[in-house]
Amino acid sequence: MTQETTEHQPVKGPRIKKGLVCVNTGNGKGKTTAALGVLFRAWGRDMKVQMFQFLKHTGSQFGETRAAKKLGIGMTAMGDGFTWRTKNMDETQDLARAQWEIAKAAILSDEYEVIILDEFTYPMHYGWISVNDVIEVLRQKPHMLHIIITGRHAPDELIEFADLVTEMREIKHPYREQGIKAQPGLEF
Amino acid sequence: MTQETTEHQPVKGPRIKKGLVCVNTGNGKGKTTAALGVLFRAWGRDMKVQMFQFLKHTGSQFGETRAAKKLGIGMTAMGDGFTWRTKNMDETQDLARAQWEIAKAAILSDEYEVIILDEFTYPMHYGWISVNDVIEVLRQKPHMLHIIITGRHAPDELIEFADLVTEMREIKHPYREQGIKAQPGLEF
Repeated sequence: MTQETTEHQPVKGPRIKKGLVCVNTGNGKGKTTAALGVLFRAWGRDMKVQMFQFLKHTGSQFGETRAAKKLGIGMTAMGDGFTWRTKNMDETQDLARAQWEIAKAAILSDEYEVIILDEFTYPMHYGWISVNDVIEVLRQKPHMLHIIITGRHAPDELIEFADLVTEMREIKHPYREQGIKAQPGLEF
Repeated sequence: MTQETTEHQPVKGPRIKKGLVCVNTGNGKGKTTAALGVLFRAWGRDMKVQMFQFLKHTGSQFGETRAAKKLGIGMTAMGDGFTWRTKNMDETQDLARAQWEIAKAAILSDEYEVIILDEFTYPMHYGWISVNDVIEVLRQKPHMLHIIITGRHAPDELIEFADLVTEMREIKHPYREQGIKAQPGLEF
C-alpha cells in the first residue's frame, strides 16, 4: 500500500525499484519541509541519508539541524545566509560551488540511499552552477539513490530530466494575510 | 532568519507568536511528507508533537511509523486502509470518527505543541465528519498549538479558516510517466 491511500494507482503488478530524481519547487511552503519528511521516513527504514543545504548560513541551527544532529544524520549548511537583499554575491557563489563539489562526491560515492540538495535550484537559476553539469552528474548517480532537489525557479532542463516534480503553490500565507512571520518548529 | 532565505519577507518588526492552522492539499506528492518534515523540525526543537493518521491501516509500518517509534513520537493510524476501491465504508467511517474523538481530546488537552491530522480532509470531504464541527474545535485550540491537516479536497470552509494553505500540485509523476510505483523510504 502506498502512502496516498486514495490515489488511483493499481496495486498489482511489479514494483520497479529505482532511485528517483525529485524536485520540489514553486512559491509555496513545504519544499524543504517535504524533503525533511523523506529524511525522516528513510531514516525510519534505516536508509543512509544525507542533506546538503545551499545558501543557508554555515552553522545554522534550524529545527532540522538540531534533529539531524541528535540522530546522527549528516546535514551540512554551507552559505552566507543569502537573501534577495544580498549585495556582494561573490562569496555566496563560491560557497555554493564548494558545497556542490562536496555533494557531487557524495552522490558518486555510492554510500547513500537518499541525498537532499536543499535550495539547490537557486545556484542553477542564477547561473552559478551549470544545469547541464548537474544533469550530467545525476545521469551517473547510483541506480538506487534517491535525490531530492528543492527551491523555487527549478530550471526547465532539470524538470525535464527529473522523475518526480511537485509544485508547492501558495494558497494562503500567514505573513501576507496577517503579518505573521515564520514560526520556529513549523517553518525552520 | 526564516527557512525560506529567498523569500521577500522583511526581517525587522516583531515576531508574532501564534500556533497556526495549516492545510497541505492538492493532487501532488508532499502533503503528508511536509507534515512529517514539521514533525522532524519540531522534535529537533524539543517540542511536543503527535500525529494522527486517518484512513491508513491500523498497525501500518510506514517509514514514518518506524521513525516515530524509534524517537518516542506519538503516531497512531486508525483505519482500514480505505482506498477509492473500498466498497463497504461503514467501518471506514466509524474508525475515522473514533480517531477524530481521540484527536479532538488531544487538541483540547493543551499537552501538545504540534498536532498533525493526516489525511483528515477525506472524512470531511465525504461528509463523515462535519467541517463546521472541526472548525469549532480548531477555534478552541490552545493559542500556541500548531495543527497541520493533510489530504486532497480540503473543504472550502477549512481553507477559509486556516492560516497557511499550500497546494501540492503534480507536475510530473513517475507512475504516470514511467509506470514506477511508490518507493519505500521516499513515499511511505
